[in-house]
Amino acid sequence: MRMVDIIAKKRDGETLATKEIEDFVRAYTADQIPDYQASAFAMAIYFQGMDEQESAALTKAMAASGDQLDLSRISGTKVDKHSTGGVGDKTTFILSPIVAAAGVPVAKLSGRGLGHTGGTIDKLEAFPGFKTELDEDTFIELVNKHKIAIAGQSGNLTPADKKLYALRDVTATVNAMPLIASSIMSKKIAAGSDAIVLDVKVGSGAFMTDLPAAKELAQTMVNIGNELGKRTVAVISDMDQPLGRMVGNTLEVKEVIDVLRGNGPEDIRRLSVRLAAHMLVLGGKAKDVEAGEALANDLIRDGSALNVFRDFIAHQGADPALVDEPEQLVKSDYSVTVKAPAAGYVSSINATDIGRAASMLGAGRMTKADTIDHAVGVEMKAKVGDWVKEGEALVDLHANRDDVEEVVNLVKESYQIGGSAPEERPLIFHEMI
Amino acid sequence: MRMVDIIAKKRDGETLATKEIEDFVRAYTADQIPDYQASAFAMAIYFQGMDEQESAALTKAMAASGDQLDLSRISGTKVDKHSTGGVGDKTTFILSPIVAAAGVPVAKLSGRGLGHTGGTIDKLEAFPGFKTELDEDTFIELVNKHKIAIAGQSGNLTPADKKLYALRDVTATVNAMPLIASSIMSKKIAAGSDAIVLDVKVGSGAFMTDLPAAKELAQTMVNIGNELGKRTVAVISDMDQPLGRMVGNTLEVKEVIDVLRGNGPEDIRRLSVRLAAHMLVLGGKAKDVEAGEALANDLIRDGSALNVFRDFIAHQGADPALVDEPEQLVKSDYSVTVKAPAAGYVSSINATDIGRAASMLGAGRMTKADTIDHAVGVEMKAKVGDWVKEGEALVDLHANRDDVEEVVNLVKESYQIGGSAPEERPLIFHEMI
Repeated sequence: MRMVDIIAKKRDGETLATKEIEDFVRAYTADQIPDYQASAFAMAIYFQGMDEQESAALTKAMAASGDQLDLSRISGTKVDKHSTGGVGDKTTFILSPIVAAAGVPVAKLSGRGLGHTGGTIDKLEAFPGFKTELDEDTFIELVNKHKIAIAGQSGNLTPADKKLYALRDVTATVNAMPLIASSIMSKKIAAGSDAIVLDVKVGSGAFMTDLPAAKELAQTMVNIGNELGKRTVAVISDMDQPLGRMVGNTLEVKEVIDVLRGNGPEDIRRLSVRLAAHMLVLGGKAKDVEAGEALANDLIRDGSALNVFRDFIAHQGADPALVDEPEQLVKSDYSVTVKAPAAGYVSSINATDIGRAASMLGAGRMTKADTIDHAVGVEMKAKVGDWVKEGEALVDLHANRDDVEEVVNLVKESYQIGGSAPEERPLIFHEMI
Repeated sequence: MRMVDIIAKKRDGETLATKEIEDFVRAYTADQIPDYQASAFAMAIYFQGMDEQESAALTKAMAASGDQLDLSRISGTKVDKHSTGGVGDKTTFILSPIVAAAGVPVAKLSGRGLGHTGGTIDKLEAFPGFKTELDEDTFIELVNKHKIAIAGQSGNLTPADKKLYALRDVTATVNAMPLIASSIMSKKIAAGSDAIVLDVKVGSGAFMTDLPAAKELAQTMVNIGNELGKRTVAVISDMDQPLGRMVGNTLEVKEVIDVLRGNGPEDIRRLSVRLAAHMLVLGGKAKDVEAGEALANDLIRDGSALNVFRDFIAHQGADPALVDEPEQLVKSDYSVTVKAPAAGYVSSINATDIGRAASMLGAGRMTKADTIDHAVGVEMKAKVGDWVKEGEALVDLHANRDDVEEVVNLVKESYQIGGSAPEERPLIFHEMI
């Protein structure tokens, strides 16, 4: 079938055959289909959607377009977790040692990514000397021995997705639900795990700002995963304000250690435990989510999770003593407090703006060439629902320069302070099991 | 505004500003916008449409993208006619001498075109020696002196439309109503006439196969024309079977002469007179369409139209004697009769298949490199509603080879013969004045 006919078929709302989708992905990856046909196709998908089979076929074909990890040498059920991304999200570093402590192997490939703060790899590099370039044998040996390893992505993973995403970005076709879902899931499928827990964020700091859209994305991804033989579970969680109190690489690592010590903010602790619980169920270590939560909490309480984390830091080349003395991690030169302009309840905080503030301080990178300042970031002193007095701290900015007026103003604008307590927003809106 | 934002705006159903459309056309023509953005934009327009202002802005910008004819040196109201195309459509050659005979100047630029039979220029070249390459001064002088000249398109007319059309052709975005309408109208606007009569075809041999679509296209084009200050009228006419009895270049010219002599098939005569009547009204030579029809019929009856046609042939370099002895025009070597397989009423004829049959005989060109055989074509002996006996002629194929079995079979299949007379289809479905 000619590409123009495939485009027309989708444009007219018909269902594409798996072979048509495979042919498209194969030929597009091989530069045999021009971008102008792929972008018209993406726009047709934007309007006409794709059903479960089509989305799964697209995901599978994109996963197969490049290298795929073979984790069969790792014993046990490999459970991966993916978050659609948000400000202050550091659950990966909390739930990974928890589930590893329970015996569920964590074999995680992560990226640096662009965004408000660094990606998983950047945050780990807050530990000086931490090595993420692991060859395949070392990676698999670490997981088999210690149940946990996190490596930087190398090789040629999902080139079809990379090419299509770059095109969607400049043709206003990013927001097509089956394309978002298949983009995320193709990377998870290529990463070789047996089961997947998805954390789909919703709110002012998330890609999906409203619940129906978040639910649709979650359902689409769960369908794709199950269609492709991977048990997939989704949690829809709040991202209307930053998660926890720390936004910035070293700051977030410190909060992770806090939580693993049994302390830390409630929201990040609860969400991490819940996600870990789902992973424990999928990994065969708990009979249901409640049992999984109990187990996860036990593994924090008795120090097992913290021990796994400490060893993990050591096995990948950094100094484990830092886990017990996180105050030795790099600190910023300046601390600037943003104060409440008036007394009242914090009624909302624009999470994206807080992320942008962290980025302006140097915590994130906007282009691949940018370098990250691990020390800087935003520390939330007041969160939604808190009562603040006039002049009381809203946030502390951790900065390596003292001319941060622009950042101060952005943070001020991101806080809404009102006369009455805001309605409470759930931390977890919905779960799809 | 960035192109990606313009695409997103249209994708979301918003109305584009005239400047945004102008910027797109200008930048796209200058190769400053990549095809992959233009195709995504076209697909967004396919789904979201364009309102009157947007369509008019797009038309005007495309008309302005290249050369525009200045017909101001021609006195009188210049009225152009455009047909969306069909099989056996030769109205141009009938109505042009009629309105010229009434004093309405006909300054027509035409193309060769791809299709089942040749374009206007190809048909005129059925007269040996007919010249269509006229410089601007000669062209304008001919029209001022004799009220009629038809020249081949030269120069760089509507390059934006050419580029966008080629892209739409391979991205399944041809069938977007505002794009079809603006493509046609941009060429008419660039051709410089003061008023336009549109003949929008509907049926099995037309681009629009159903009446609602034909009406929408007609209305869109009428709106565009009026929005841009050109009085525009549309006639929606039948193209469910070939128009007249002749399909093929010389064959059609012979039928034109027949009609101008006051004979010829009723459908082609009636439609030509009706279209001419609208042109006479727009050109200020008749107070209404009925008066226009009366005038047109008079100009046929008294021989004025035929005289104008004869002179026109002479002024552009061919032998006017051929108009009085059309049997001297080139003839094919073979004639093959396709016979009715059974007795009955002709209930339908697939016009596209008849066109394809003519093309297979050599009457049309499928690529620009093909040469046209002016002698060949299809002569319809039986039309819809006719009663035929078994073995009676359905068509005569005029061919220059005798191995035409494939063509015979195609023609046979294109005829449906049934037991009862089919419902009569109107020749003119609708008029928009």
